[in-house]
Amino acid sequence: MRLVDDPAANLKREAGEQAALLVEGGMVVGLGTGSTAAFVIAALARRHQEGLRFTAIATSERSAKQARDLGIELSDFGHHDAIDLTIDGADEIERGSLNLIKGLGGALLREKIVAAASRKLVIIADERKMVRHLGEHTAVPVEVTPFGWESTARQLGVLGARVSARHDRVGTLFVTDGGNMILDCNFGVIDDPAGLERRIGEIVGVIESGLFIQRASLVLVAGADGVARYERA
Amino acid sequence: MRLVDDPAANLKREAGEQAALLVEGGMVVGLGTGSTAAFVIAALARRHQEGLRFTAIATSERSAKQARDLGIELSDFGHHDAIDLTIDGADEIERGSLNLIKGLGGALLREKIVAAASRKLVIIADERKMVRHLGEHTAVPVEVTPFGWESTARQLGVLGARVSARHDRVGTLFVTDGGNMILDCNFGVIDDPAGLERRIGEIVGVIESGLFIQRASLVLVAGADGVARYERA
Repeated sequence: MRLVDDPAANLKREAGEQAALLVEGGMVVGLGTGSTAAFVIAALARRHQEGLRFTAIATSERSAKQARDLGIELSDFGHHDAIDLTIDGADEIERGSLNLIKGLGGALLREKIVAAASRKLVIIADERKMVRHLGEHTAVPVEVTPFGWESTARQLGVLGARVSARHDRVGTLFVTDGGNMILDCNFGVIDDPAGLERRIGEIVGVIESGLFIQRASLVLVAGADGVARYERA
Repeated sequence: MRLVDDPAANLKREAGEQAALLVEGGMVVGLGTGSTAAFVIAALARRHQEGLRFTAIATSERSAKQARDLGIELSDFGHHDAIDLTIDGADEIERGSLNLIKGLGGALLREKIVAAASRKLVIIADERKMVRHLGEHTAVPVEVTPFGWESTARQLGVLGARVSARHDRVGTLFVTDGGNMILDCNFGVIDDPAGLERRIGEIVGVIESGLFIQRASLVLVAGADGVARYERA
């Protein structure tokens, strides 16, 4: 194993490799998106080279390309009713509940569709992502339809959010894989994540929020002392 | 006024003209989509020629083009916080509640965004669209994201629907203005439309359903004896 200089990257790689060990032969595996998920896909590719056979469904074009280039067989929901195990990253993880904020990478809709179809969702992260209450450090990304997004943003504001439309690096509006927009909604500390997810979802024009409530069953957290395991309370 | 041979078309035209009379100078007007809405846009264009000044927001490229070609000024939600009055058609209208099923024309998402931003939603229809309970004749169109639609369809089936993916005339999957798909969900007669709308909306992958609950405030129904007015009970 080639070690990179970034200690955080080494920790994420270690957690990603432990998560990849959860995959068994014949499984349908959901592949997350982002820097952490990329370590998982690399680890799964090594297990594939060693002879493990499984099928994957990817949450982004980027992860699909990485998996394909490494020889992992890709499939879709037309061929599989359910996913056995999905391994993904997260932007914030609430201790105890394991409720999540996801979507800083821009793939929240596909990540949530895959999570919803998964028997088991395993999240890998480093210690800095663990929080006492969701919203401490992170805005909630909300994927919205471009038509009328200003009206949708105003309604998110009524729920208490400071809303900003996400832009890409060259300053144009960010476009998701599904052709939608992301509104980053800063609610501050979130007291009732399940209620907030429901109220956001009721706004016409909202496609999905990055609140993942009671979806993760296991979180692997890479810290200086090794990989800690948290199961949902 | 040129009369066409189709008596139903003449009735819809009559109701559309009455609805167009509700528009006042300076209003922001939402333009629906479909054969009925086309009569409204034509009637509004005549009022525009007569000097009435208003701004319109269209629910489809088709309606936008018709309005633009007829000289109506178009705007968007970047310039207006709210819409004063939207006039649209519907596929089924429940007597009393004025709850609706919309979306057979394929524009339900934009129609619902415009309806949600409207102070007043006026529906015009002919008598055959009035039902005692929603679902008597019409499936509920549900706009879904293409990624994972087979999984989304299975979850709609769990709610009790017979689900079919909408195709266009040449047999390929229908694509909405927003790049999404429509699943036509036959629930039979719907006892609890508000509850059903909520349960459909909670499914990850669903963008919006064609159930419009407590959104219409006035329905103009063209019948053989003239245009009847129904206000929400």
